[in-house]
Amino acid sequence: MLTQELDKTLTEIRAYLEQGNVSRAIERLEELRPPERADIISDLDSKEQVVLLKDMDHSISADIVEDLTDQEAADLIADLPTRTAVRIIEQMEPDEAADLLGDLTPEIAQILLSKLERPEDIQPLLIHPDETAGGLMTSEFITLRPHMTVQQALRALRTWKPETEDIYYLFVVDESKRLSGVVNLRQLVIAEPLTRVEEIMDTEVISVLVGTDQEECANLMSRYDLLALPVVDHEKVLLGAITIDDMVDVLVSEATEDIQKLGGAQPLTQPYLKTSVISVTQKRIGWLLLLFLTESLTGTVLRHFEERLQAVVALSFFIPLLIGTGGNAGTQTTTTLTRALATGEIRMKDTLRALWHEARAGFLLGVIMAIVAYLRALTWGSDTALALTVSAAVFTIVLWANMLGSILPIVATRLRIDPAVVSGPVLSTLVDATGLFVYLSIAGWILGLS
Amino acid sequence: MLTQELDKTLTEIRAYLEQGNVSRAIERLEELRPPERADIISDLDSKEQVVLLKDMDHSISADIVEDLTDQEAADLIADLPTRTAVRIIEQMEPDEAADLLGDLTPEIAQILLSKLERPEDIQPLLIHPDETAGGLMTSEFITLRPHMTVQQALRALRTWKPETEDIYYLFVVDESKRLSGVVNLRQLVIAEPLTRVEEIMDTEVISVLVGTDQEECANLMSRYDLLALPVVDHEKVLLGAITIDDMVDVLVSEATEDIQKLGGAQPLTQPYLKTSVISVTQKRIGWLLLLFLTESLTGTVLRHFEERLQAVVALSFFIPLLIGTGGNAGTQTTTTLTRALATGEIRMKDTLRALWHEARAGFLLGVIMAIVAYLRALTWGSDTALALTVSAAVFTIVLWANMLGSILPIVATRLRIDPAVVSGPVLSTLVDATGLFVYLSIAGWILGLS
Repeated sequence: MLTQELDKTLTEIRAYLEQGNVSRAIERLEELRPPERADIISDLDSKEQVVLLKDMDHSISADIVEDLTDQEAADLIADLPTRTAVRIIEQMEPDEAADLLGDLTPEIAQILLSKLERPEDIQPLLIHPDETAGGLMTSEFITLRPHMTVQQALRALRTWKPETEDIYYLFVVDESKRLSGVVNLRQLVIAEPLTRVEEIMDTEVISVLVGTDQEECANLMSRYDLLALPVVDHEKVLLGAITIDDMVDVLVSEATEDIQKLGGAQPLTQPYLKTSVISVTQKRIGWLLLLFLTESLTGTVLRHFEERLQAVVALSFFIPLLIGTGGNAGTQTTTTLTRALATGEIRMKDTLRALWHEARAGFLLGVIMAIVAYLRALTWGSDTALALTVSAAVFTIVLWANMLGSILPIVATRLRIDPAVVSGPVLSTLVDATGLFVYLSIAGWILGLS
Repeated sequence: MLTQELDKTLTEIRAYLEQGNVSRAIERLEELRPPERADIISDLDSKEQVVLLKDMDHSISADIVEDLTDQEAADLIADLPTRTAVRIIEQMEPDEAADLLGDLTPEIAQILLSKLERPEDIQPLLIHPDETAGGLMTSEFITLRPHMTVQQALRALRTWKPETEDIYYLFVVDESKRLSGVVNLRQLVIAEPLTRVEEIMDTEVISVLVGTDQEECANLMSRYDLLALPVVDHEKVLLGAITIDDMVDVLVSEATEDIQKLGGAQPLTQPYLKTSVISVTQKRIGWLLLLFLTESLTGTVLRHFEERLQAVVALSFFIPLLIGTGGNAGTQTTTTLTRALATGEIRMKDTLRALWHEARAGFLLGVIMAIVAYLRALTWGSDTALALTVSAAVFTIVLWANMLGSILPIVATRLRIDPAVVSGPVLSTLVDATGLFVYLSIAGWILGLS
């Protein structure tokens, strides 16, 4: 993942460290941009990491730790002396710190937490599951009161000098800390100084409950072009805010996970080349085995029709072609629907419309494929009866694959199973076995085999 | 895509329109948030749309048109009277307006452009391809000069009262309009009034050339947590800026496209349920046919081994199982690599590392699957020779599928073909045909068939 330039810097830093010139190595590292620093650190071995981070400015280390992958950050923090680890965590954004503590062993997390100067910033964030609004939100946000003037608000900002980058939205709360409006920094800057905040604030705030799934939060922010999304409890009390940079990370990683799941593998938790071969194998073998065993069903179907296959060996020539086509048609449908469900483009109430859509598309596709299959079988030297068999089977299989491809993701969603997991490979296996059954049944009927 | 509440509003608005009470319908629509207004409009028929938009405030109509899909927006604008269309386009963000004009027929676009009050805002944006930085950027951005004080800058903002939401980054340019720094609104607000802009600006600005691919822009913004990305020409002259909301749309739509392509279909240009059945069929039939014809190769392979299949019918029972497993293993690899290439996680120079990674993972997976396949074949009542054949074939096919699954996306990228297009279904077809060849060759060797 390093560019050539960074590769050179990495070599330089390594050389300085070997010479024992730690301060020069740190200087060189600090000349880079924060995400690039993290790239370098993640390419060093754990001894080199510890040497560097121990002597570095803790706020810079904190930025680096935030930019590492979860696993890398947890490993690094566990390797550091407790004192250094605590200082670094104190400099991290509270939401990132809470995520990190959640990735450590409970013992280490407990020790670090007990030594923090202000554990109360992080503790409330620890109780929320990682993939919910509560797990994503930061507790570092700025609130205004409705009766403040714009001048007072700006003066307050100047005094606080908030370090957080994300003060583009300022939340307005009432005396019980209930969210009553939002005003953005642009509005504050261009408003007349004596205007009251409540006069310019937007009261129709879009907010989410603390337990909302992260994917839904991301879809809301992207739909309404929000830079920050306030998180509230059932009383509308403001608990935190999700910022756009975290939301972008969620969108990217949810899409990556969905793609890996659609490809029939457990999602990787680390970047690909950093994931060990053993770990890559573990993420894949489960599905591969499960599918192998369920796919055995196809063998059972074929054995059931052994005599027909014995009588007309040519029947077997079309097996891969037919199940391949069924798999392709089903996958086309299921990937489209799974993605549309993920982005909120279709919802559960659209189920029947989607099904009807696919039934008609499947019918059209089936007719076209049947004609092509008929001609292809003839040009291959099959007699018309066999060509007709293949043709009828293709039609039925394509139609069936489309229906199954639209039903599966919807049923999965209803059963609260991730549709991306079941859709790809489970679909192929189902289509394969049923498709063969259809094909050989039709063969018996048309060719008059017993 | 409408929620129940919106469904009700839609019914109300339709009722008002039927009664001829257009102004009441408009009022009701304006009570909603902008993206919800677009949802309603997109569910109305074109006559209803025209009636509403003709009488509505043009700036509200402009927001609605921006939130529609490209196709919907183009259809609507083409239906409107020229005068209304021109007024609406003038109220749109320049980048959105340019995109819209690009989606219209050249004749209509020319007429509208010639009637715009300030065509020079949009004209330069028209020359850039849609999927590049130039096609994404807006020409509406705010520049400061380095010698201005913070006070002067804020006062200027107050006077301009910029309508654009995205003034969180202010770009600093020299006398030749070359980008020399960036300062964010937070820095301006909290700085001492008499500080000069050049003292607080960040001079290490990340910018992109106007021809940069949109996916690369999105990856940069997400990596460096940017709210806006300046776009420059070869002389570093600032031409425009990409804002975070457009970037989020790019990330989401690129992921959707990749998923649809991996599923073996041309990406839909409209939301799923709005795409007609005919159009869904068209997007899929090409690949389905192409794959059907290439998959015929498997039939050729099987015919080549006709005598073996005739001699041992049990060989055919394992065909779907073997090609299914090969397809699954290859798809696992190829989806992971295609995604890693798309997010910039691996680059072309990592080619050999990725290949070596997959060779080892494929070996491990192959060994495990071979053992399982051997046992499965035995429990199915196959003799040891057949079980050994299946086992050896599974090992070879899994290893081969993993190698092919890593080579294909990389070769595609090098040939400047989108890896998502070739990876999924092309891979299965290749693995199927070669896998069968391997299987039946091994069968001949182990079972002593001619």
